[in-house]
This record gives sequence, structure tokens and C-alpha cells, in this order.
Amino acid sequence: MSRWTDAPRERTHALGLVFPPAGDHYTGMQLDFIGAIAETAQAYGYDVLLTTGSKAGDHPFQRLLAGRLVDGVILMEIQLDDDRADLLSELGIPYVLIGRARVEKTSWVNLDFAALGRDCVRHLADLGHRTIAFVNRSEHLFRSGYQSAHLGQEGFVRGVTELGLTGRTYLCDDDAAAGEACLERILLEDPATTAVVTMNEAGLGGLYRGLKRAGRAVPRDFSVVGVVAGPWAERVTPQLTAADMPAAEMSRVGVELMMERLKAPDAPPRHVLLRPLICTRDSTGPCKPVPGPDS
Amino acid sequence: MSRWTDAPRERTHALGLVFPPAGDHYTGMQLDFIGAIAETAQAYGYDVLLTTGSKAGDHPFQRLLAGRLVDGVILMEIQLDDDRADLLSELGIPYVLIGRARVEKTSWVNLDFAALGRDCVRHLADLGHRTIAFVNRSEHLFRSGYQSAHLGQEGFVRGVTELGLTGRTYLCDDDAAAGEACLERILLEDPATTAVVTMNEAGLGGLYRGLKRAGRAVPRDFSVVGVVAGPWAERVTPQLTAADMPAAEMSRVGVELMMERLKAPDAPPRHVLLRPLICTRDSTGPCKPVPGPDS
Repeated sequence: MSRWTDAPRERTHALGLVFPPAGDHYTGMQLDFIGAIAETAQAYGYDVLLTTGSKAGDHPFQRLLAGRLVDGVILMEIQLDDDRADLLSELGIPYVLIGRARVEKTSWVNLDFAALGRDCVRHLADLGHRTIAFVNRSEHLFRSGYQSAHLGQEGFVRGVTELGLTGRTYLCDDDAAAGEACLERILLEDPATTAVVTMNEAGLGGLYRGLKRAGRAVPRDFSVVGVVAGPWAERVTPQLTAADMPAAEMSRVGVELMMERLKAPDAPPRHVLLRPLICTRDSTGPCKPVPGPDS
Repeated sequence: MSRWTDAPRERTHALGLVFPPAGDHYTGMQLDFIGAIAETAQAYGYDVLLTTGSKAGDHPFQRLLAGRLVDGVILMEIQLDDDRADLLSELGIPYVLIGRARVEKTSWVNLDFAALGRDCVRHLADLGHRTIAFVNRSEHLFRSGYQSAHLGQEGFVRGVTELGLTGRTYLCDDDAAAGEACLERILLEDPATTAVVTMNEAGLGGLYRGLKRAGRAVPRDFSVVGVVAGPWAERVTPQLTAADMPAAEMSRVGVELMMERLKAPDAPPRHVLLRPLICTRDSTGPCKPVPGPDS
């Protein structure tokens, strides 16, 4: 039925992992995924061939397909219209997505980012916060159609609108300095802001530092809630209240879906949508009104 | 001359990266290496086949050699006597070490851990600390002959002895809970301890928490200096004074050495020893005497 699966070939027991770094380098969360995918694959007796390429025409992606070193492919950093997925479908190469593209020809696992963005807003609203900001990923990623950044922001805006809160959204590069600068901008543009929702885990340390510099103690004067990988949330002080990105769970499901595709390439695809709960730690608390200039 | 290089075979433009996780999972520092090695290899037009195996007989390692999917092999988590290196030498497979084994038949890059352990002690001594502790990696890693854990501890002990300080060494599992427990033990066994040198980056958050719980403010009452990857040192609050593990630099050199081996497999091996400087951040300060029970 397909070029790739028709040709009799020996299994290599290697999976291609197509994972372009965010900007120049892999972020901590990307590395958490790489580690967890490798660990799960190893448990199934597979190695992982880590390669890059965000477009079907990118050289490393083409090399992966030409080299036939892998039995199947896991795609990461999915774009709304992802031509890598289209090409893999055309060639009949077994593949799965961690993340979701518009074309749904294969199995995927994803987080329900829209629901998570909304959940974070609700958590803050329950604590009395009325003026909140959303710190998203970088402008570059957002403009390139990066799924989670779009869906998360949609959920945030929806939550804010539903609850009649004041909310602003910010794009922020993936590093601590950008996080610190972003926090400064937030307080400059609306000093009444008492809380932040963030999906930018690499900027988190900078957000915290910016708050300290601005004299806002977390969680007494300011709350921060995030969508980040669990270990990250626990590494910062105060520990972050967050809808923990279940990188290990998503990776496990992704590799399992891959194993299913390898066994039965023509079976109908399976789609898994995860919506982790917000884990309350030490970075969110009841809203305390911001002192005005007269107080 | 050798079985592997004699057989005419097509280059796959993939490098094997043999990197067993520490315990059940890859640590953040391991993941930093994986990311940096992949990024550098990608820049040279190579992909990275990530696999595991700490012994030559381990199945994934054997599969890697049998599969012939890679042009060369980078070994990580080197043991004092490493039979993976011996087997690769025997088979004539081009390989390099990140870390150093006793057998020096190929190129390697390593940190001068002994010098670093000593440098950390000197830094603390310069600040007036006289009673210090060393928080090493896990007992499991130490017992298995893990190079950096042995060399770092040797350097610490040497520094302490040379300067006439009081020093104790502790093994600590690679997680925050173990770090917290370890700190508690340190203060219990010698309450006069005013500083810690640590090579256990995964336990660092726990060390900090333990200090907070014990009422010791960093750096006012207690200093912490570490050998950890740069980004890690900056993510914690207060930021960690550390001999930054140059994961990106070591990875770059490792991949470059690999490229040299591929070009000239019979050239004499090259050995690169890096000794990063201690970068002073916010976690170390002048020693303040510990208040006695009467004060």
C-alpha cells in the first residue's frame, strides 16, 4: 500500500525523533521530553535518533527519510499546518505527533492547552485576582503558528472574558532576561496587575527576579501560575503553582502510540488529549489590593 | 586493519551517543549534554542516535554495534575501567569519551574535577569558612567507580587537608528530597558547618530548602558553592556561585574530536582537560560564626 512499508526491510529498532530546538538551543522542557521519550523507547527495546527540521524540505529531515535508519518517526513542535506530517503520510512512513496538527491522519497525544489556559485564569479568579497578565512563548514561535502558544492564549483570553477580568497578553523570548524585561513591562503598562499566568518556563526565573526587584513578594503581593514541567515547578523558590506539563506521561503515550502504528500501520489513528490538574504550590495566594500612590 | 573500518560501508551521518540515565531518569545536567551534543552534531550534518548501556554486554550497546547505524560512537558516564571503551577499541570503531577512562586509546574531553573540588574549597577558605561539607553524587554512582564523583571528592579532601580545615563528605541521591535530608544530616553531625561544596545539581533545590528550614539564610549564615551547569546555577535563588560545568563547551569539543576520529581513525588520540573558573554569584559570602547554644 505504501512505498515505505512495502519494501521488505529489516527493523532497525530505532525511532526518529524530529525535534527542532526552540531558537538556538533546546529548552529545559524540550530536553525533558527528549529524555522521557528516550527512556520509554529504551524500555520497548528501541533507540532514538534525534534529528531536527521544522519543515519537510529541511535537510536533516530529508536525510532521515532517505537514510532509512528508523522504523518510525515521532514529530515534535507541531505547527498548525505541518508539511512534515503531510510528507510522512504521503510516503506511508509510520509516525505519531506529540502535539497536534490540523491534518489528523495519524495518532497524536497533546495537552488541552486551551482548557489549561482557562483553568489557570479560574484559579487566579478564585483567589480574588481581577487584573492579570499572560506571559506566552516568543514572538518567533507564535508567528510560526506554534500550536500550544496559540491555544494557551485563546484559553486565557476566553477565561478572562467569561469572568469579566482585565487581562493582557505578552510574548516573551525563552530566557530569564526576557522574563525579567517582560515583568517590568507588565507592571509599567498596568501597575494594578496582581498575577501572571505563564507558559514560558525558561523565562520563569526572570519573572521571579523582576517581581523581587519591583518589591512584589510572591505569593503575598503577587501570584504566578504556570503551565510547565513538574520538576521545573519544584526547582524554583517559591515553588510554582502550575498545571504541570506531564512530559513523562505525554512521552510515554507518544511512544506507545508509535508502537501501535508499527504493529498495525493501517489501523485507525488514536488521539489522546491530556488535561492535567493545577497543582497548588507556593506561588499563588489571595489577591491583596495593590497600594495606590496615596497609600 | 579493523573489522569495522575495513568493510566498505556507506556513511549514515549518525553518531551513537551511549548515555545511560543516572538511576531511573536522565538528570537535568545529562539532558543539557544530550541537547548540546545533538545541536553540535546537527551543525556538522550529523544526527545523534541516543542509546543506553553502561557495560559492553548490555543489550542496547550490543544492538548499536550490530546495527551499524552509526559512523562513530560517543561514550558518556565513563567508569574507571570501562569495558565499552575496550570493546570499541577491539572492534576498531571510531569513538570518543566525554569523561575519562583509565584506558586512553582514544580521544577524550573531561573536566579537571580534582582541581575543581580543590578550587571550591579555596574559594570558601578565602571567605573565612573553616568547617565545610562536600555533597557528592549517589552512593550507587560512587560505588560503580564513577569518575567525576571520585575525582571531585579527592580534590575536596586535598583542599581541606592543605588548608587545615574541617571537612566531611556525603553521598546524596540525585533528587531534591535527598538533598534536603543530606543537609539535615550535615547540620546534625556538625552544627558548626558554615558551607557546602556540591556536585549534586539535582539535590541543590533540596539543600536550599533544608537550609531555609534550619533557619540558615544563604549567603548571610551559610555558603553554597557547586560544580553544576551554568543555566542551573542561574535558575535557583539565590543564584549559585559555581565552577560552571561547561556542558556546551565539553559537548562541542567532544563532537569535534569525534569528527577528527572519523576523518583520521589512525591518528594519535587527543586529550582535552577543561578547568572552568568559579563564577561568583549570590550563594557564597564571608563566614559568620555559628551562634552557640548559649548565644
